[in-house]
Amino acid sequence: MEKLPYLLRHENIAHIEENALYIGDRRNFPFKKNFVKCNAVEDLVANLKAMVTQGGGPLEAGLRFLQLDLQRGCNLETIKKDAKLIASARPTNTTLEKTFNSLFEKSNLENLNENIEKEFDYYDKQYYKMGNYGSSLILNKQTILTNCFAEHSFIIACLLAKEQGKKPKVICAETRPYLQGARLTAPSLEELGIEVSVITDNLMATYMDKIDMFMTAADKSFSNKTVINKIGTLSGAILCKYYHKPYYAFSIAPDYCKPKYIMEFRSGKELTKIGSLKTTFARLGKDYPAFDVIPSKLVTSIITPYGIV
Amino acid sequence: MEKLPYLLRHENIAHIEENALYIGDRRNFPFKKNFVKCNAVEDLVANLKAMVTQGGGPLEAGLRFLQLDLQRGCNLETIKKDAKLIASARPTNTTLEKTFNSLFEKSNLENLNENIEKEFDYYDKQYYKMGNYGSSLILNKQTILTNCFAEHSFIIACLLAKEQGKKPKVICAETRPYLQGARLTAPSLEELGIEVSVITDNLMATYMDKIDMFMTAADKSFSNKTVINKIGTLSGAILCKYYHKPYYAFSIAPDYCKPKYIMEFRSGKELTKIGSLKTTFARLGKDYPAFDVIPSKLVTSIITPYGIV
Repeated sequence: MEKLPYLLRHENIAHIEENALYIGDRRNFPFKKNFVKCNAVEDLVANLKAMVTQGGGPLEAGLRFLQLDLQRGCNLETIKKDAKLIASARPTNTTLEKTFNSLFEKSNLENLNENIEKEFDYYDKQYYKMGNYGSSLILNKQTILTNCFAEHSFIIACLLAKEQGKKPKVICAETRPYLQGARLTAPSLEELGIEVSVITDNLMATYMDKIDMFMTAADKSFSNKTVINKIGTLSGAILCKYYHKPYYAFSIAPDYCKPKYIMEFRSGKELTKIGSLKTTFARLGKDYPAFDVIPSKLVTSIITPYGIV
Repeated sequence: MEKLPYLLRHENIAHIEENALYIGDRRNFPFKKNFVKCNAVEDLVANLKAMVTQGGGPLEAGLRFLQLDLQRGCNLETIKKDAKLIASARPTNTTLEKTFNSLFEKSNLENLNENIEKEFDYYDKQYYKMGNYGSSLILNKQTILTNCFAEHSFIIACLLAKEQGKKPKVICAETRPYLQGARLTAPSLEELGIEVSVITDNLMATYMDKIDMFMTAADKSFSNKTVINKIGTLSGAILCKYYHKPYYAFSIAPDYCKPKYIMEFRSGKELTKIGSLKTTFARLGKDYPAFDVIPSKLVTSIITPYGIV
């Protein structure tokens, strides 16, 4: 497999340098490739809330921070406390919480660093497996609609489809308010030589008869096929139903329980600006949930590391 | 009825001053209230293409330009030629073409100015009639979803509903790429004391269970109930179908023929910026139709000056 695009390389997601954690600032990509320095755990939490990195980024940044704690000689109690704070920064996606819990179950101060490295390897392999299953759903010259930044799984699915000679095309919905589709997904696919274009979110319906499937990440999913993902995903899934197109979500580990979750609400002020540019009066923005809940009847399949459910 | 909001007052849409036409620049509203000067008809056409004004704006700016022609002592042939150029600036909405044709059928150089003034009066009355029918569809404390800037008819419908004590609430989808929902509709409703908030276009599905109806303008409509309106309208109409909510479009004069139209395509570069702010690489933007075609099965009713169809 070719090299991953800039945004998905470990060192560009988060790295330790001179006793501090540096996280890749996805808010300015693709125009700037800067890093934000985090000294204390509170810096990291504030930056995760402020969307400096998102999607799979917080997990990687969080694990790296625990390595920094180790390097700084913190005791296990402090490290566990930091892990809890980091996991609570964005409450809806519970991958961090689950990963940290399983990590501490099997680790002591001596093997924690090694076990964290094993987590990185584990996730790399799981992402690849999901990408591989995803690529099997893409047929020759098909067009995939996506939104937000579905990270490794989706990017690897497209990359493998390309390497298999299928010439996939991708249409990215820009994904307001943070424009991850326009800024992260589209430039990353272009970097890999995949044909890609950007549309505004309100053009999804307009292009439904030109696409073959809708593929997204899942910030959380459940064994009954309920998916929780970035706002705009519910629109896309309903449009798929209306146009009889499949909707697939990548999820590393669906929860085997009835759907229950903490929905993160964010300030309406975020909806009245783009970066530093005001789009209307800040007072007019409506507070909003960060994620859509997509009922199972709208989900064709969930793509997991263990197969297509 | 209370005074119309700033954006809908005749003098702020377009006015003649010192032998030139000044059109209200809606691209900078609500932060700036500037006017763009048009000397030659080519200036006006270029500014209409560049979205300085849109929706009902081009008709009013066009009629004013013909008055300027008269003031400048142009002959009827020149005025007709200018009208043709103005009507062709944005090809999908044919209201200008139809209005100019009917105007020239009944006018000579002597009565043209008077007949143009009659057109302004006629449209004011038609808008009011549509607004009045629209307000009858809004029940006590209902929430209306809208997009783009549905101009007089919708604003008057909300205003009348408010005056009838119904306390309407409006949610405006921001309407990328030009953000008319965020910048024009929401501030205009706020100006009238109507409760209003702004969401991103991809939040429409998320809020469908909180709204009672979706109301939009129609750049063009047909007697079989097909509606042509701003991109994003098709998404909204499909969501309405899925959530069993009514979708209403305001249309001053549906065409009594089978749906036929010229679809305006616009540069994908517009999708990669917001005002002067780049959102991603310009080369990634996909060329796009300016309007959605909404099939009749998704349209509950068209609100015309003659009643609700």
